[in-house]
Amino acid sequence: MRNLKLTLAYDGTRFVGWQRQSEGESIQGLLEAALSRFEGAPVVVHGAGRTDAGVHALGQVASAQVTCTHDTASITRGLNAQLPLDIRVTRVEEVAADFHARFSATTKTYRYLLRTSAVSNPFERMYVWHLSETLDLEAMRHASACLVGTHDFSAFQSTGSEPGTSVRTIRRSELVTWPDWFERDTPALLAYEIEGDGFLRHMVRAIVGTLVAIGRGWRTSSSMVALLGGAARADAGATAPAHGLFLVRVDYD
Amino acid sequence: MRNLKLTLAYDGTRFVGWQRQSEGESIQGLLEAALSRFEGAPVVVHGAGRTDAGVHALGQVASAQVTCTHDTASITRGLNAQLPLDIRVTRVEEVAADFHARFSATTKTYRYLLRTSAVSNPFERMYVWHLSETLDLEAMRHASACLVGTHDFSAFQSTGSEPGTSVRTIRRSELVTWPDWFERDTPALLAYEIEGDGFLRHMVRAIVGTLVAIGRGWRTSSSMVALLGGAARADAGATAPAHGLFLVRVDYD
Repeated sequence: MRNLKLTLAYDGTRFVGWQRQSEGESIQGLLEAALSRFEGAPVVVHGAGRTDAGVHALGQVASAQVTCTHDTASITRGLNAQLPLDIRVTRVEEVAADFHARFSATTKTYRYLLRTSAVSNPFERMYVWHLSETLDLEAMRHASACLVGTHDFSAFQSTGSEPGTSVRTIRRSELVTWPDWFERDTPALLAYEIEGDGFLRHMVRAIVGTLVAIGRGWRTSSSMVALLGGAARADAGATAPAHGLFLVRVDYD
Repeated sequence: MRNLKLTLAYDGTRFVGWQRQSEGESIQGLLEAALSRFEGAPVVVHGAGRTDAGVHALGQVASAQVTCTHDTASITRGLNAQLPLDIRVTRVEEVAADFHARFSATTKTYRYLLRTSAVSNPFERMYVWHLSETLDLEAMRHASACLVGTHDFSAFQSTGSEPGTSVRTIRRSELVTWPDWFERDTPALLAYEIEGDGFLRHMVRAIVGTLVAIGRGWRTSSSMVALLGGAARADAGATAPAHGLFLVRVDYD
């Protein structure tokens, strides 16, 4: 068997999420169908991150074992010919037999896009969380910096998470300005970027919801620290909408 | 009567175009419906440029006569509350009685986005013309510069154009690199920008199709000049797809 590493970009808007479900189209389901047709037999695909409905990916990684002997460029073209245009395979590589997209991953990077403006931008409606009030960015920057390090993120974990520890290590957590699409001279977007060894269910969206509550002045920026020692989900802010979230990249050793 | 100037941004993907039609949703139709509900009587809206189905706008301008006495900020909020999120009114101003969005316009600016890459980007499928071959950008830049000035653009006019002269004055015509969305480090997009006193039906898309034919080496860059003296539509290149085109702005004296 050959072990393949597939890198994917997708617009998550119309999908039920990464994971195959009994109803609705999933990225995993469409990728497995395309790869199975190529292979001539059923193929199971494992994804690095199970993105929810509406969440996007710039660099999702999947792994799959196949017997077909086509070169990786042909597999890339073959899969893209079958997949809809909102899912693209950007790279296929042959990797060692013990590579697993999820269990071998060492770091994942997510980005969440926000815009504060009186009127929203029609091109951003599926990709950016629009807020009509101004935010205290200094308070949000201070709170986001507190997340770096090893903490118990139970306050940012939705019910339905897999059992196991809620301790994770965050290497980077910052709020940056982000270039606008289509316009060079309009106010810039905001991007919250977080990089860590793993993420709990809805963790990035719960962090963003809490940061926005801080930016709105509903919470103090120092309140973030109190949430990092095993607090309850209800102690943190609301879950931010799915459509602003992007899985940017997955790294391996 | 008060005369209003409305500035609009819209994602043209799912509309039949700017103009009201017997079937399908148009931007003009939805805007008239929203403004009529606000006014409590039928209102006719005139647009500066009649964008086709799939063509987008960052700064379309429309004008309408109303009797309602609400301030312009309330009208902006009231229209946006009624319009779908893929159409936004970015500004409403009260203007002189003789202002007409179309007849008073002195300059329009369009932009057309292109990307050349082996694999397309899922987030650009409705906004960028994806080409899998590389293009000779120098030849395209040379050809695009030839368009500046006053010429007979009949070679770039589709059938169904309104009667009248096909002579137009182009002030700017250039191919520039364009920042990527979502990624800061991937190869940049290309943007063709054209600014002129008026445009014939499908003119920008016919110019882009001809420039791409030049970039592909199917035509020489000097062949552009021969098309500027009243040539037939068949002498120029194909019409580029609608989804890469944006009406960027409309200027008035």
